[in-house]
Amino acid sequence: MLITEPLDFELPEPLKLDCGKELKQVNIRYETAGKLSPAADNAVLVAHALSGNSHVCGRYSADDTKPGWWDDMVGPGKAIDTDKYFVICSNVIGSCAGSTGPRSIDPDTGKPYNLTFPVITIRDMVRAQKHLVEHLGIKRLLAVIGGSMGGMQALEWAINFPDMVDGVIPIATTSQLSPQSIAFDWVGREAIKNDPRWNGGDYASDQVPEGGLSTARMLAHITYLSDESMSRKFGRELQDTDRYSFDFKRDFAVESYLEHQGRRFVEFFDANSYFYITRAMDYFDMARRSGGDLSKTLSAAKATFLVISFSSDWLFPTAESLKIVSALLKNRLNVSFCEIQSGYGHDAFLLEVDALGRMVRDFLRNILEVRRG
Amino acid sequence: MLITEPLDFELPEPLKLDCGKELKQVNIRYETAGKLSPAADNAVLVAHALSGNSHVCGRYSADDTKPGWWDDMVGPGKAIDTDKYFVICSNVIGSCAGSTGPRSIDPDTGKPYNLTFPVITIRDMVRAQKHLVEHLGIKRLLAVIGGSMGGMQALEWAINFPDMVDGVIPIATTSQLSPQSIAFDWVGREAIKNDPRWNGGDYASDQVPEGGLSTARMLAHITYLSDESMSRKFGRELQDTDRYSFDFKRDFAVESYLEHQGRRFVEFFDANSYFYITRAMDYFDMARRSGGDLSKTLSAAKATFLVISFSSDWLFPTAESLKIVSALLKNRLNVSFCEIQSGYGHDAFLLEVDALGRMVRDFLRNILEVRRG
Repeated sequence: MLITEPLDFELPEPLKLDCGKELKQVNIRYETAGKLSPAADNAVLVAHALSGNSHVCGRYSADDTKPGWWDDMVGPGKAIDTDKYFVICSNVIGSCAGSTGPRSIDPDTGKPYNLTFPVITIRDMVRAQKHLVEHLGIKRLLAVIGGSMGGMQALEWAINFPDMVDGVIPIATTSQLSPQSIAFDWVGREAIKNDPRWNGGDYASDQVPEGGLSTARMLAHITYLSDESMSRKFGRELQDTDRYSFDFKRDFAVESYLEHQGRRFVEFFDANSYFYITRAMDYFDMARRSGGDLSKTLSAAKATFLVISFSSDWLFPTAESLKIVSALLKNRLNVSFCEIQSGYGHDAFLLEVDALGRMVRDFLRNILEVRRG
Repeated sequence: MLITEPLDFELPEPLKLDCGKELKQVNIRYETAGKLSPAADNAVLVAHALSGNSHVCGRYSADDTKPGWWDDMVGPGKAIDTDKYFVICSNVIGSCAGSTGPRSIDPDTGKPYNLTFPVITIRDMVRAQKHLVEHLGIKRLLAVIGGSMGGMQALEWAINFPDMVDGVIPIATTSQLSPQSIAFDWVGREAIKNDPRWNGGDYASDQVPEGGLSTARMLAHITYLSDESMSRKFGRELQDTDRYSFDFKRDFAVESYLEHQGRRFVEFFDANSYFYITRAMDYFDMARRSGGDLSKTLSAAKATFLVISFSSDWLFPTAESLKIVSALLKNRLNVSFCEIQSGYGHDAFLLEVDALGRMVRDFLRNILEVRRG
């Protein structure tokens, strides 16, 4: 059984941010699994998605029933094999799972930042990760891998620190958030704003805006599934009844499921973090940095790429992955691409472990072979 | 210039509802355009969508700048030609544009119904319309036409009053709301519930839950557009700025657009009506009435059908229209079907007036010719 533990690393210096501000005393919560080789050439960084955390694999104790969020993919003998690779996963800044975020104490005031926390970008998240990687004695990562927002981070690694990464695996992601996704993010934040408990981001820890946050999550959750998977999973089935109730309580199984997802989410996620992380995604636009020319932005990259999309993902559809592939090919980079057939929608990156695992396993082995010559 | 005026009709008896209750003193707000022929054989009923009303065409006065919601389709010389046809459009019960709804006064208490208003169905809406049609001296409609929820009403006409309608034109609609749409409706209502002003549906007219209602509308609005139309219309353009503001105010044109749509909506639409009408759509499921067999339910129909969908409509996609077509064909009914190529998403039924208009015009002419022999 793989036992992991959360660790903390405080950045040695203030973190310079894209917004122009600096963030002081930045803590990075992270976990590792496997062993770093003497040559420090087997490190794989896993980047997590919006609601993820550093607990990517394993359990915290022998009787811990809940493994890490990508435990199906990462562990001894698994696709990202911790018998071979040294796996690192760090909680992104701005989040609420240990790394410095809007609910952290501002050292200048002694109070929680809340909305005085600076608006961060995906690139800022990656800049913080880079400090961690260096702290761990790694000059060059074997690979960076991530789905959704994790894929955005993988792309940022490729162009910001091209000499620090051999392989990049962006999964179910995009090079720029679409207006439709920006719109969904906007509505989710509006739902939180409408909750009087949110109070402009200034709430006590026992008075959090549960209603607003769970509504935002339910909305986002719809975008993670597909019409097909919802039809297969729930259809129009009623929950605990065989006839319409003719009221506004939940009648349908899909309503009950959403309710459950919303309720669960507010138990571990923070409303202000929801603001900061969705905004970081809204601002993610690699082409914009080169006047709209994605291939120009990606010309900084040197890595070998494995780009993966899922056929029913309508949040980050295959067309978005193909834009990335096409821009990488223009730069004559080594790129493999696969669209995995799946009915699970965007969530497929967490569920299609067999197909995904096979490709990731082979890719990592090849990269390691090339590196070791 | 076509001048129309809103009229009222009070049902002569209480309206029996699907939920088992009765609704007393039901008022129907409606408008008509064109002239009913002496044989009363040229009447076309237009059924409106969620946020629509009885003002389908024309203007209320010579200096009225805002025509009816389908004025591009309905009027002298237009596809639904008021020089030829007698056009009727009535506001659905449960709505807030003149017909009896949750904000109407309950005659038993002298106070607004609010959430004591019975939960209604699409079939209930159509039952009320039938009384109006009879009141107007029409034994048999030439056609019933409607998009989205209007299409659901058209289908209900076909099977509930098969001897009262010659032609049925369901546009951009479905025979049963999908779990994905039920989910979006649920989240929209949750957003309203979170607004403390909503107060369980019991709010003063000058203290309406604007925040919640506008959030629900913004969400729904995303589902009316397509990823393609949003990309073409807004892309990632910024509004009134050339750089990210690094805050949570609106930066993007699409955010500004949604804000505008939300603000506009609360000026004319009511939060409780939003509850009742979305619930009526959630409950819409024609197959369920025959144990899941749509063709069995539709076997009651006698009309000639023109079914129309739009290629980029992901709310009520073409596959849903094809289910209807297939079930009608099993019953050996006369059916024409067309998927109109459009990038506008669900909203196309209001926008693709040229393609839509040509088909509707021909269909009505044919139906009238057949009727007049």
